[in-house]
Amino acid sequence: MQPRRRGRPGHDQDAVLAAAVRLFNAHGYDATSMFDVAESLSITKSTLYHHVSSKEQLLEMAVDRALGGLEEAAEEVRATTAPATDRLEQLIRRSVLVLAERLEFVTLLLRVHGNTEVELHALARRRDFDRIVTDLVKQAQTEGGIRADVDPATAARLLFGMVNSLVEWYRPDRGDPEAIATTVATLAFEGLRTR
Amino acid sequence: MQPRRRGRPGHDQDAVLAAAVRLFNAHGYDATSMFDVAESLSITKSTLYHHVSSKEQLLEMAVDRALGGLEEAAEEVRATTAPATDRLEQLIRRSVLVLAERLEFVTLLLRVHGNTEVELHALARRRDFDRIVTDLVKQAQTEGGIRADVDPATAARLLFGMVNSLVEWYRPDRGDPEAIATTVATLAFEGLRTR
Repeated sequence: MQPRRRGRPGHDQDAVLAAAVRLFNAHGYDATSMFDVAESLSITKSTLYHHVSSKEQLLEMAVDRALGGLEEAAEEVRATTAPATDRLEQLIRRSVLVLAERLEFVTLLLRVHGNTEVELHALARRRDFDRIVTDLVKQAQTEGGIRADVDPATAARLLFGMVNSLVEWYRPDRGDPEAIATTVATLAFEGLRTR
Repeated sequence: MQPRRRGRPGHDQDAVLAAAVRLFNAHGYDATSMFDVAESLSITKSTLYHHVSSKEQLLEMAVDRALGGLEEAAEEVRATTAPATDRLEQLIRRSVLVLAERLEFVTLLLRVHGNTEVELHALARRRDFDRIVTDLVKQAQTEGGIRADVDPATAARLLFGMVNSLVEWYRPDRGDPEAIATTVATLAFEGLRTR
Protein backbone atom coordinates (compact mmCIF):
# COMPACT_ATOMS: atom_id res chain seq x y z
CA MET A 1 0.00 0.00 0.00
CA GLN A 2 1.35 3.38 -0.93
CA PRO A 3 0.75 6.27 1.44
CA ARG A 4 -1.73 8.60 -0.27
CA ARG A 5 -3.28 11.79 0.96
CA ARG A 6 -5.89 11.86 -1.78
CA GLY A 7 -7.94 9.21 -3.57
CA ARG A 8 -9.32 5.88 -2.43
CA PRO A 9 -9.27 6.54 1.30
CA GLY A 10 -11.77 3.65 1.73
CA HIS A 11 -9.46 1.24 0.00
CA ASP A 12 -6.55 2.36 2.14
CA GLN A 13 -8.52 1.94 5.35
CA ASP A 14 -9.51 -1.59 4.27
CA ALA A 15 -5.87 -2.46 3.68
CA VAL A 16 -4.92 -1.05 7.09
CA LEU A 17 -7.71 -3.01 8.74
CA ALA A 18 -6.75 -6.26 7.01
CA ALA A 19 -3.11 -5.87 8.04
CA ALA A 20 -4.06 -5.06 11.64
CA VAL A 21 -6.41 -8.04 11.95
CA ARG A 22 -3.74 -10.37 10.59
CA LEU A 23 -1.35 -9.16 13.29
CA PHE A 24 -3.98 -9.24 16.06
CA ASN A 25 -4.81 -12.87 15.17
CA ALA A 26 -1.18 -13.92 14.87
CA HIS A 27 0.28 -12.24 17.96
CA GLY A 28 -2.71 -11.10 20.04
CA TYR A 29 -4.37 -7.71 20.22
CA ASP A 30 -2.51 -6.62 23.34
CA ALA A 31 0.88 -7.65 21.98
CA THR A 32 0.38 -5.70 18.72
CA SER A 33 1.29 -2.01 18.60
CA MET A 34 0.33 0.67 16.08
CA PHE A 35 4.04 0.69 15.19
CA ASP A 36 3.76 -3.02 14.24
CA VAL A 37 0.74 -2.27 12.05
CA ALA A 38 2.54 0.62 10.31
CA GLU A 39 5.66 -1.47 9.85
CA SER A 40 3.77 -4.39 8.27
CA LEU A 41 2.37 -1.92 5.69
CA SER A 42 5.73 -0.20 5.16
CA ILE A 43 4.21 3.15 6.13
CA THR A 44 5.06 5.53 8.96
CA LYS A 45 3.02 5.69 12.14
CA SER A 46 2.03 9.22 11.18
CA THR A 47 0.65 7.99 7.83
CA LEU A 48 -1.18 5.21 9.68
CA TYR A 49 -2.89 7.82 11.86
CA HIS A 50 -4.23 9.49 8.68
CA HIS A 51 -6.34 6.37 8.23
CA VAL A 52 -7.36 5.41 11.77
CA SER A 53 -7.39 7.23 15.06
CA SER A 54 -6.36 4.39 17.38
CA LYS A 55 -5.68 0.67 17.77
CA GLU A 56 -9.03 0.41 19.51
CA GLN A 57 -10.76 1.87 16.42
CA LEU A 58 -9.19 -0.94 14.36
CA LEU A 59 -10.55 -3.52 16.81
CA GLU A 60 -13.97 -1.88 16.71
CA MET A 61 -14.06 -1.87 12.90
CA ALA A 62 -12.90 -5.49 12.75
CA VAL A 63 -15.46 -6.92 15.19
CA ASP A 64 -18.13 -4.80 13.48
CA ARG A 65 -17.39 -6.54 10.17
CA ALA A 66 -17.94 -9.89 11.86
CA LEU A 67 -21.00 -8.96 13.92
CA GLY A 68 -22.50 -6.88 11.13
CA GLY A 69 -22.54 -9.90 8.82
CA LEU A 70 -24.21 -12.12 11.41
CA GLU A 71 -26.74 -9.44 12.38
CA GLU A 72 -27.67 -8.83 8.73
CA ALA A 73 -28.31 -12.56 8.36
CA ALA A 74 -30.51 -12.53 11.48
CA GLU A 75 -32.37 -9.47 10.17
CA GLU A 76 -33.03 -11.13 6.82
CA VAL A 77 -34.49 -14.32 8.28
CA ARG A 78 -36.55 -12.26 10.73
CA ALA A 79 -38.16 -10.52 7.73
CA THR A 80 -39.52 -13.78 6.25
CA THR A 81 -42.74 -15.57 7.19
CA ALA A 82 -41.33 -19.09 6.88
CA PRO A 83 -41.72 -21.56 9.78
CA ALA A 84 -39.20 -20.96 12.58
CA THR A 85 -37.34 -24.21 11.79
CA ASP A 86 -36.69 -23.05 8.23
CA ARG A 87 -35.66 -19.60 9.43
CA LEU A 88 -33.24 -21.20 11.91
CA GLU A 89 -31.81 -23.38 9.16
CA GLN A 90 -31.41 -20.33 6.90
CA LEU A 91 -29.66 -18.44 9.69
CA ILE A 92 -27.23 -21.33 10.26
CA ARG A 93 -26.49 -21.59 6.53
CA ARG A 94 -26.03 -17.84 6.16
CA SER A 95 -23.78 -17.73 9.22
CA VAL A 96 -21.48 -20.39 7.73
CA LEU A 97 -21.15 -18.23 4.59
CA VAL A 98 -20.43 -15.12 6.67
CA LEU A 99 -17.73 -17.00 8.58
CA ALA A 100 -16.07 -18.33 5.44
CA GLU A 101 -16.13 -14.88 3.84
CA ARG A 102 -15.03 -12.88 6.91
CA LEU A 103 -12.93 -15.57 8.58
CA GLU A 104 -10.18 -13.29 9.95
CA PHE A 105 -12.70 -10.85 11.42
CA VAL A 106 -14.75 -13.61 13.08
CA THR A 107 -11.56 -15.27 14.38
CA LEU A 108 -10.72 -12.00 16.12
CA LEU A 109 -14.28 -11.57 17.39
CA LEU A 110 -14.29 -15.03 18.97
CA ARG A 111 -11.11 -14.18 20.91
CA VAL A 112 -12.52 -10.96 22.40
CA HIS A 113 -12.84 -11.44 26.16
CA GLY A 114 -11.53 -8.16 27.52
CA ASN A 115 -12.81 -5.32 29.55
CA THR A 116 -12.47 -2.28 27.31
CA GLU A 117 -15.62 -0.52 26.14
CA VAL A 118 -15.18 -1.83 22.58
CA GLU A 119 -14.77 -5.40 23.80
CA LEU A 120 -17.71 -5.23 26.22
CA HIS A 121 -19.90 -3.81 23.44
CA ALA A 122 -18.86 -6.66 21.10
CA LEU A 123 -19.65 -9.24 23.80
CA ALA A 124 -23.08 -7.64 24.33
CA ARG A 125 -23.82 -7.86 20.58
CA ARG A 126 -22.73 -11.53 20.60
CA ARG A 127 -25.12 -12.21 23.48
CA ASP A 128 -27.96 -10.49 21.57
CA PHE A 129 -27.24 -12.69 18.57
CA ASP A 130 -27.18 -15.84 20.76
CA ARG A 131 -30.56 -14.81 22.17
CA ILE A 132 -32.01 -14.54 18.65
CA VAL A 133 -30.82 -18.09 17.92
CA THR A 134 -32.16 -19.47 21.21
CA ASP A 135 -35.52 -17.75 20.60
CA LEU A 136 -35.73 -19.27 17.12
CA VAL A 137 -35.11 -22.74 18.60
CA LYS A 138 -37.87 -22.15 21.19
CA GLN A 139 -40.30 -20.88 18.55
CA ALA A 140 -39.52 -23.86 16.30
CA GLN A 141 -40.24 -26.18 19.24
CA THR A 142 -43.57 -24.41 19.90
CA GLU A 143 -44.48 -24.84 16.22
CA GLY A 144 -43.54 -28.53 16.49
CA GLY A 145 -40.76 -28.31 13.89
CA ILE A 146 -37.91 -29.08 16.31
CA ARG A 147 -37.82 -31.90 18.84
CA ALA A 148 -39.00 -30.86 22.29
CA ASP A 149 -36.45 -32.96 24.22
CA VAL A 150 -33.49 -30.60 23.76
CA ASP A 151 -32.77 -27.54 25.84
CA PRO A 152 -33.05 -24.51 23.49
CA ALA A 153 -30.02 -22.65 24.90
CA THR A 154 -27.84 -25.78 24.73
CA ALA A 155 -29.00 -26.48 21.17
CA ALA A 156 -28.21 -22.88 20.16
CA ARG A 157 -24.73 -23.15 21.71
CA LEU A 158 -24.01 -26.45 19.96
CA LEU A 159 -25.26 -25.16 16.58
CA PHE A 160 -22.88 -22.22 16.81
CA GLY A 161 -20.18 -24.49 18.20
CA MET A 162 -20.29 -26.17 14.78
CA VAL A 163 -20.51 -22.91 12.84
CA ASN A 164 -17.76 -21.16 14.82
CA SER A 165 -15.45 -24.16 14.53
CA LEU A 166 -14.82 -22.96 10.95
CA VAL A 167 -12.33 -20.42 12.32
CA GLU A 168 -10.22 -23.40 13.47
CA TRP A 169 -10.25 -25.47 10.30
CA TYR A 170 -11.81 -23.72 7.30
CA ARG A 171 -9.60 -23.24 4.28
CA PRO A 172 -10.84 -22.71 0.71
CA ASP A 173 -9.39 -26.11 -0.27
CA ARG A 174 -11.57 -27.86 2.32
CA GLY A 175 -14.79 -27.57 0.35
CA ASP A 176 -16.72 -24.58 -0.90
CA PRO A 177 -18.69 -22.66 1.71
CA GLU A 178 -22.10 -23.58 0.23
CA ALA A 179 -21.25 -27.30 0.52
CA ILE A 180 -20.06 -26.84 4.11
CA ALA A 181 -23.24 -24.89 4.93
CA THR A 182 -25.28 -27.82 3.56
CA THR A 183 -23.29 -30.33 5.63
CA VAL A 184 -23.83 -28.26 8.80
CA ALA A 185 -27.57 -27.97 8.08
CA THR A 186 -27.88 -31.69 7.26
CA LEU A 187 -26.04 -32.75 10.41
CA ALA A 188 -27.97 -30.32 12.62
CA PHE A 189 -31.49 -30.83 11.28
CA GLU A 190 -31.52 -34.36 9.80
CA GLY A 191 -28.76 -36.00 11.85
CA LEU A 192 -25.98 -38.29 10.64
CA ARG A 193 -27.72 -41.62 11.27
CA THR A 194 -29.43 -43.31 8.33
CA ARG A 195 -33.00 -44.47 8.88
CA MET B 1 -0.34 -24.95 49.45
CA GLN B 2 2.42 -25.30 52.01
CA PRO B 3 5.92 -26.00 50.77
CA ARG B 4 6.79 -29.54 51.79
CA ARG B 5 9.89 -31.56 51.14
CA ARG B 6 8.28 -34.79 52.29
CA GLY B 7 4.81 -36.29 51.92
CA ARG B 8 2.20 -35.98 49.19
CA PRO B 9 4.45 -34.84 46.36
CA GLY B 10 1.72 -35.94 43.90
CA HIS B 11 -0.83 -33.73 45.55
CA ASP B 12 1.55 -30.80 45.52
CA GLN B 13 2.33 -31.29 41.85
CA ASP B 14 -1.41 -31.37 41.07
CA ALA B 15 -1.88 -28.08 42.90
CA VAL B 16 1.06 -26.53 41.04
CA LEU B 17 -0.34 -27.75 37.72
CA ALA B 18 -3.84 -26.44 38.46
CA ALA B 19 -2.48 -23.02 39.40
CA ALA B 20 -0.28 -22.86 36.31
CA VAL B 21 -3.11 -23.83 33.95
CA ARG B 22 -5.37 -21.18 35.49
CA LEU B 23 -2.71 -18.55 34.78
CA PHE B 24 -1.92 -19.87 31.28
CA ASN B 25 -5.64 -19.71 30.37
CA ALA B 26 -6.17 -16.28 31.91
CA HIS B 27 -3.06 -14.48 30.61
CA GLY B 28 -1.57 -16.74 27.95
CA TYR B 29 1.24 -19.27 28.22
CA ASP B 30 3.92 -16.89 26.88
CA ALA B 31 2.88 -14.06 29.21
CA THR B 32 3.03 -16.28 32.32
CA SER B 33 6.36 -16.75 34.12
CA MET B 34 7.40 -19.35 36.67
CA PHE B 35 7.57 -16.44 39.10
CA ASP B 36 3.85 -15.77 38.46
CA VAL B 37 3.07 -19.44 39.14
CA ALA B 38 5.09 -19.42 42.38
CA GLU B 39 3.50 -16.15 43.49
CA SER B 40 -0.05 -17.41 42.88
CA LEU B 41 0.73 -20.35 45.20
CA SER B 42 2.50 -18.17 47.78
CA ILE B 43 5.66 -20.26 47.44
CA THR B 44 9.16 -19.30 46.35
CA LYS B 45 10.44 -20.03 42.85
CA SER B 46 12.97 -22.40 44.41
CA THR B 47 10.15 -24.38 46.10
CA LEU B 48 8.27 -24.42 42.78
CA TYR B 49 11.30 -26.02 41.12
CA HIS B 50 11.14 -28.86 43.68
CA HIS B 51 7.86 -29.83 42.01
CA VAL B 52 8.47 -29.18 38.32
CA SER B 53 11.58 -28.64 36.25
CA SER B 54 10.27 -25.99 33.83
CA LYS B 55 7.31 -24.04 32.53
CA GLU B 56 7.35 -26.26 29.48
CA GLN B 57 6.97 -29.33 31.72
CA LEU B 58 3.81 -27.76 33.15
CA LEU B 59 2.44 -27.25 29.63
CA GLU B 60 3.33 -30.82 28.71
CA MET B 61 1.60 -32.23 31.80
CA ALA B 62 -1.47 -30.06 31.19
CA VAL B 63 -2.00 -30.99 27.55
CA ASP B 64 -1.32 -34.63 28.45
CA ARG B 65 -4.25 -34.55 30.91
CA ALA B 66 -6.51 -33.35 28.11
CA LEU B 67 -5.22 -35.61 25.34
CA GLY B 68 -4.88 -38.59 27.67
CA GLY B 69 -8.59 -38.43 28.50
CA LEU B 70 -9.60 -38.28 24.84
CA GLU B 71 -7.18 -41.03 23.82
CA GLU B 72 -8.45 -43.32 26.60
CA ALA B 73 -11.99 -42.78 25.32
CA ALA B 74 -10.86 -43.64 21.77
CA GLU B 75 -9.06 -46.74 23.06
CA GLU B 76 -12.15 -47.93 24.94
CA VAL B 77 -14.49 -47.65 21.96
CA ARG B 78 -11.89 -49.30 19.73
CA ALA B 79 -11.98 -52.32 22.04
CA THR B 80 -15.71 -52.96 21.52
CA THR B 81 -17.33 -54.86 18.65
CA ALA B 82 -20.35 -52.55 18.32
CA PRO B 83 -21.24 -51.06 14.89
CA ALA B 84 -19.05 -48.08 13.96
CA THR B 85 -22.00 -45.65 14.32
CA ASP B 86 -22.51 -46.72 17.93
CA ARG B 87 -18.78 -46.52 18.64
CA LEU B 88 -18.69 -43.02 17.15
CA GLU B 89 -21.65 -41.99 19.30
CA GLN B 90 -19.94 -43.45 22.38
CA LEU B 91 -16.74 -41.57 21.56
CA ILE B 92 -18.66 -38.28 21.19
CA ARG B 93 -20.48 -38.83 24.50
CA ARG B 94 -17.29 -39.81 26.32
CA SER B 95 -15.47 -36.80 24.88
CA VAL B 96 -18.14 -34.43 26.23
CA LEU B 97 -17.62 -35.96 29.70
CA VAL B 98 -13.82 -35.62 29.40
CA LEU B 99 -14.20 -31.96 28.42
CA ALA B 100 -16.55 -31.16 31.28
CA GLU B 101 -14.25 -32.92 33.77
CA ARG B 102 -10.94 -31.55 32.45
CA LEU B 103 -12.24 -28.23 31.11
CA GLU B 104 -9.20 -26.10 32.04
CA PHE B 105 -6.76 -28.60 30.53
CA VAL B 106 -8.73 -28.90 27.28
CA THR B 107 -9.11 -25.09 27.10
CA LEU B 108 -5.33 -24.83 27.19
CA LEU B 109 -4.89 -27.66 24.66
CA LEU B 110 -7.21 -25.96 22.16
CA ARG B 111 -5.11 -22.79 22.32
CA VAL B 112 -1.83 -24.56 21.60
CA HIS B 113 -0.57 -23.38 18.20
CA GLY B 114 3.12 -22.85 18.82
CA ASN B 115 6.37 -24.22 17.55
CA THR B 116 8.04 -25.69 20.60
CA GLU B 117 8.59 -29.44 20.73
CA VAL B 118 5.89 -29.85 23.40
CA GLU B 119 3.37 -27.90 21.33
CA LEU B 120 4.17 -29.69 18.07
CA HIS B 121 3.83 -33.05 19.86
CA ALA B 122 0.43 -32.01 21.24
CA LEU B 123 -0.72 -30.91 17.77
CA ALA B 124 0.39 -34.26 16.34
CA ARG B 125 -1.61 -36.14 19.01
CA ARG B 126 -4.65 -33.96 18.19
CA ARG B 127 -4.30 -34.84 14.51
CA ASP B 128 -4.09 -38.56 15.37
CA PHE B 129 -7.29 -38.24 17.40
CA ASP B 130 -9.03 -36.38 14.53
CA ARG B 131 -8.00 -39.18 12.19
CA ILE B 132 -9.58 -41.79 14.50
CA VAL B 133 -12.85 -39.81 14.42
CA THR B 134 -12.77 -39.39 10.62
CA ASP B 135 -12.03 -43.11 10.18
CA LEU B 136 -14.97 -44.00 12.42
CA VAL B 137 -17.25 -41.81 10.28
CA LYS B 138 -15.96 -43.52 7.11
CA GLN B 139 -16.42 -46.98 8.60
CA ALA B 140 -19.95 -46.10 9.75
CA GLN B 141 -20.74 -44.94 6.20
CA THR B 142 -19.39 -48.21 4.77
CA GLU B 143 -21.58 -50.15 7.22
CA GLY B 144 -24.56 -48.02 6.13
CA GLY B 145 -25.14 -46.56 9.59
CA ILE B 146 -24.28 -42.97 8.67
CA ARG B 147 -25.57 -41.07 5.63
CA ALA B 148 -23.25 -41.24 2.65
CA ASP B 149 -23.84 -37.64 1.50
CA VAL B 150 -21.55 -35.98 4.07
CA ASP B 151 -17.79 -35.64 3.75
CA PRO B 152 -16.25 -37.71 6.62
CA ALA B 153 -13.53 -35.17 7.49
CA THR B 154 -16.02 -32.28 7.53
CA ALA B 155 -18.45 -34.31 9.66
CA ALA B 156 -15.64 -35.15 12.11
CA ARG B 157 -14.64 -31.46 12.35
CA LEU B 158 -18.24 -30.38 12.95
CA LEU B 159 -18.84 -33.07 15.58
CA PHE B 160 -15.79 -31.88 17.50
CA GLY B 161 -16.75 -28.27 16.84
CA MET B 162 -19.80 -29.00 18.99
CA VAL B 163 -17.86 -30.95 21.61
CA ASN B 164 -15.02 -28.44 21.85
CA SER B 165 -17.43 -25.52 22.12
CA LEU B 166 -17.92 -26.60 25.73
CA VAL B 167 -14.69 -24.80 26.64
CA GLU B 168 -16.47 -21.56 25.63
CA TRP B 169 -19.73 -22.01 27.48
CA TYR B 170 -19.80 -25.00 29.84
CA ARG B 171 -20.44 -24.28 33.49
CA PRO B 172 -21.78 -26.80 36.02
CA ASP B 173 -24.99 -24.75 36.30
CA ARG B 174 -25.68 -25.17 32.57
CA GLY B 175 -26.79 -28.77 32.82
CA ASP B 176 -25.04 -31.89 34.00
CA PRO B 177 -22.45 -33.34 31.61
CA GLU B 178 -24.45 -36.53 30.95
CA ALA B 179 -27.45 -34.46 29.82
CA ILE B 180 -25.23 -32.32 27.57
CA ALA B 181 -23.63 -35.46 26.12
CA THR B 182 -27.11 -36.75 25.30
CA THR B 183 -28.08 -33.45 23.63
CA VAL B 184 -24.90 -33.51 21.53
CA ALA B 185 -25.53 -37.13 20.51
CA THR B 186 -29.22 -36.45 19.73
CA LEU B 187 -28.42 -33.40 17.62
CA ALA B 188 -25.57 -35.11 15.79
CA PHE B 189 -27.16 -38.49 15.10
CA GLU B 190 -30.94 -37.88 15.05
CA GLY B 191 -31.02 -34.20 14.07
CA LEU B 192 -33.17 -31.42 15.53
CA ARG B 193 -36.05 -31.64 13.05
CA THR B 194 -39.13 -33.59 14.09
CA ARG B 195 -40.46 -36.14 11.62
